[in-house]
Amino acid sequence: MITPLRGRDELDVAGLERLIEHILAGGVAGLFILGTSGEAPSLSYRLRRELIERVCRQVNGRVPVLAGITDTSFVEMIGLSRHAAGQGVSALVTATPYYFPSGQPELIEHLEHLLPELPLPLMLYNMPSMTKVSFARDTVRWAVQQPGIIGIKDSSGDMLYFHDLIDIARARPDWAVFVGPEELMAEVVLLGGHGGVNGGANFKPRLYVDLYEAAAARDLERMLELNRQVQAIARAVYRVGRHASAVIKGMKGMLSLMGICDDYMAEPFHRFRPAERQELERRARGLGLLP
Amino acid sequence: MITPLRGRDELDVAGLERLIEHILAGGVAGLFILGTSGEAPSLSYRLRRELIERVCRQVNGRVPVLAGITDTSFVEMIGLSRHAAGQGVSALVTATPYYFPSGQPELIEHLEHLLPELPLPLMLYNMPSMTKVSFARDTVRWAVQQPGIIGIKDSSGDMLYFHDLIDIARARPDWAVFVGPEELMAEVVLLGGHGGVNGGANFKPRLYVDLYEAAAARDLERMLELNRQVQAIARAVYRVGRHASAVIKGMKGMLSLMGICDDYMAEPFHRFRPAERQELERRARGLGLLP
Amino acid sequence: MITPLRGRDELDVAGLERLIEHILAGGVAGLFILGTSGEAPSLSYRLRRELIERVCRQVNGRVPVLAGITDTSFVEMIGLSRHAAGQGVSALVTATPYYFPSGQPELIEHLEHLLPELPLPLMLYNMPSMTKVSFARDTVRWAVQQPGIIGIKDSSGDMLYFHDLIDIARARPDWAVFVGPEELMAEVVLLGGHGGVNGGANFKPRLYVDLYEAAAARDLERMLELNRQVQAIARAVYRVGRHASAVIKGMKGMLSLMGICDDYMAEPFHRFRPAERQELERRARGLGLLP
Amino acid sequence: MITPLRGRDELDVAGLERLIEHILAGGVAGLFILGTSGEAPSLSYRLRRELIERVCRQVNGRVPVLAGITDTSFVEMIGLSRHAAGQGVSALVTATPYYFPSGQPELIEHLEHLLPELPLPLMLYNMPSMTKVSFARDTVRWAVQQPGIIGIKDSSGDMLYFHDLIDIARARPDWAVFVGPEELMAEVVLLGGHGGVNGGANFKPRLYVDLYEAAAARDLERMLELNRQVQAIARAVYRVGRHASAVIKGMKGMLSLMGICDDYMAEPFHRFRPAERQELERRARGLGLLP
Repeated sequence: MITPLRGRDELDVAGLERLIEHILAGGVAGLFILGTSGEAPSLSYRLRRELIERVCRQVNGRVPVLAGITDTSFVEMIGLSRHAAGQGVSALVTATPYYFPSGQPELIEHLEHLLPELPLPLMLYNMPSMTKVSFARDTVRWAVQQPGIIGIKDSSGDMLYFHDLIDIARARPDWAVFVGPEELMAEVVLLGGHGGVNGGANFKPRLYVDLYEAAAARDLERMLELNRQVQAIARAVYRVGRHASAVIKGMKGMLSLMGICDDYMAEPFHRFRPAERQELERRARGLGLLP
Repeated sequence: MITPLRGRDELDVAGLERLIEHILAGGVAGLFILGTSGEAPSLSYRLRRELIERVCRQVNGRVPVLAGITDTSFVEMIGLSRHAAGQGVSALVTATPYYFPSGQPELIEHLEHLLPELPLPLMLYNMPSMTKVSFARDTVRWAVQQPGIIGIKDSSGDMLYFHDLIDIARARPDWAVFVGPEELMAEVVLLGGHGGVNGGANFKPRLYVDLYEAAAARDLERMLELNRQVQAIARAVYRVGRHASAVIKGMKGMLSLMGICDDYMAEPFHRFRPAERQELERRARGLGLLP
Repeated sequence: MITPLRGRDELDVAGLERLIEHILAGGVAGLFILGTSGEAPSLSYRLRRELIERVCRQVNGRVPVLAGITDTSFVEMIGLSRHAAGQGVSALVTATPYYFPSGQPELIEHLEHLLPELPLPLMLYNMPSMTKVSFARDTVRWAVQQPGIIGIKDSSGDMLYFHDLIDIARARPDWAVFVGPEELMAEVVLLGGHGGVNGGANFKPRLYVDLYEAAAARDLERMLELNRQVQAIARAVYRVGRHASAVIKGMKGMLSLMGICDDYMAEPFHRFRPAERQELERRARGLGLLP
Repeated sequence: MITPLRGRDELDVAGLERLIEHILAGGVAGLFILGTSGEAPSLSYRLRRELIERVCRQVNGRVPVLAGITDTSFVEMIGLSRHAAGQGVSALVTATPYYFPSGQPELIEHLEHLLPELPLPLMLYNMPSMTKVSFARDTVRWAVQQPGIIGIKDSSGDMLYFHDLIDIARARPDWAVFVGPEELMAEVVLLGGHGGVNGGANFKPRLYVDLYEAAAARDLERMLELNRQVQAIARAVYRVGRHASAVIKGMKGMLSLMGICDDYMAEPFHRFRPAERQELERRARGLGLLP
């Protein structure tokens, strides 16, 4: 889930409530907040805490809420975890520390220190384009043996790695392997992955739920048709801007065009300029995403 | 300056005082806290604030204190800046945001937003190995035109880039260009740079001050002799460990061996194990760094 | 196809004949020689020419032969192309020039110069891990408009890129999009790709043909079962060695264990040492790849 | 030395003779042909051989000629080496193999195979931006022990690495450590390096010879003044174009403007277009490089 903002350090509270209802109405199985699309590293700790509170209150147990605690500071990670546990979050999610690049033994030791401090189960989040470091295959093998770790979300886009994750996860049937990029969700679910954490579900949740279900049910015709829509949306919505910010800007721009929430973005980014917004609108109409 | 720690989220207060006196006794021109060697991104905000207070109190105006505010959250950067200004810090230092990689136009806009919020002058800190993004030459050209920005510290190790920085800074005589890696300080100062922000000055400050002065005075013989010592120390002290953490571990290990402060390190790292510590001690004795 | 060698600059002629018959007996649709697995850049031009001759004679029109002409020297590329045309090769294959990294406009101009000189249709080969440069999406859009270019083989492993290739290729129904890594062939074919150029087909060609056919026929059960075998082979056979050479060593090692051809490798690599060979044999037996 | 070309696979013979006389008149200590600036990987083997012959004949023993044999094919490397030895070349130069990235043990073994086959001494050439692989410090330590290897040219631009090279070379007084980028030559020579292999010496050889001599003589004032000129030339001449080709295009463009030789470039590059050529001319006049 993106984080609806009205300004620097200010949540778009009404927009947040609309967004949550919009997503839940689409039938999603859970909500992941404070990830990359949630701009978590760009938010103040105060706002991250407020977001957790408001999301948990609004969701009110209808689906599990997963909250990102990725940080460079161990102490802040623990603080946020405790806050999350107190609000009713179901599980925590962490990428690797992302200022200092850890070696894999350091990464395992970091997780060994972290696990006993966490009040909730942990899901790993592989995001090397942002954090510079991947969870190496052997580190994931170790993680599967930790009762406190319940799965991994992989946003690397590297399907060779993903296939190995599926293989490694066979050692523990309750261990989840999710994919980040929605363009890969169909094949991932078909080939043994457990689902996707897809940004497009912010603005069109039903499509991604339907795609998941078609893949899980092995309804190939339907899966291929829905997958074509997903690919077309990704190509249209996430490539209006340049730089790494284009994807989040696209999502927030869509939600703003749909009247769901504000498209304010935390520094170092900014919302689309009018010309980009118009281009996004044009593309979205072309795909039938707007009335 | 490294950050002396006694444990997770706990400063080594007595060690910090000894360390500051040790460094100042070496004749340094200023103190840079909360940089990479200071493990700033790994520290809680509470501890960062405490460190700023204690350092300013201990230094008590004898030299300027520069404080790093590098962060992924704009709001936290401003909060830390205000705190620093209230304690007597002289200037702030920031690298690029380091989770999301910004394009250069985004980076300039980020700085444009930042400058009016800062109560103190700003120095840039180029650290692409950690932040993934460099301040491009054209961005530095823009920065030289900003009265609120007073210089740049470059830790890229890329001397082709550094020579361009010196050239760009000619447009503003008061603009400082410092180098990070101490192995490059001699040549940098000789060729027009303004100094170094050198980690080795934590444990042997006089050597780096002497090297700077020899280079600034163009005393070539002395500069070459001191430079040889600096190179030998870098090779011995910073390569006991592996991974990116080896340099900081080496500095903290030296300070611990010298009885100045604890060598506790914040996650995701840890101090040297006994075998590494012994190896460091052996090397340090070989170089006459320990009695 | 790997290149069977008996020594430096010496083909394993008998092994080559056995290998071709082994692969063709598996039902493959074509033979790609002088690619990465073929160690083409490591071979002398004399040997490359000899290989083309011998392969064409042995295949004798039973399947199309595609020959790699990837080179850093334009003149040598043309020379090899003419030789290939004279021997009966069906199409040429080229990656980007791989010493100097070209910008995309330079790459298009390079292809514009190349096409009129080529006596045969050209297939692109995207291999950025070796060549440092990808065929950017816009370059592929340009390529689809060139009658002399008939398709692309993508070995990047980047499925987001691959999905875009499929989309771009819709503009020209006869344009082929093949995948390099065999671990991705099933999903690629299922989702609109046209096939794979898979190294494992050197030693177990029928498996990859069956996998292709199951995916093309949308026989999901069979596809998943065969895909599991393919994944297991990749994990076992291609990871005995370290470094980038592990995959080719694994293939050649398998063929040597099967008595099909020598496992000599051109510099800068060398065949498996005895311990690695034994480990490969152990794994291959575990998978039923050896009697 | 760049390679003067008149067209695809055609040397600019008269230009080559003028260029050699121009460079030798500048007082250089040696001539390095078939390196990166020489576009060696882009040339046919026939032309490389012709170049070696013509250069050796023209130089006629006045200075040593070093010839690059960098290649992906071991057999072609040896062939070229023998040809070079027969023409009077003094030493051979090789970067790492550059299609397949070797691990360091593979690289050492590659050199172990190569050395007994070479009829001339070998100099290493560290060029990771093109070859993807560096000669690691431990590999250089090994190389210093090999009588057949006489030095290294480092074009990485990484001065931390370069300082280690100087340190490693202390083990063998006759072992040369040269730097590639001319912007670094002054500091390198001052700090213990043995010289530079500088592209700018193609068009203004005396300047680089003078800079070397000033640095070697520790004539600081003169060195700094000459170094300023070198930096200004690099900034003006090598940045007219974009992409990796800008440096060679700049050199060839200068030589064309000076009437010394043609600026034809081998694929995948091309000479400057008229607008770029005019811009280069404008800059060159501004620096007094043209009458």
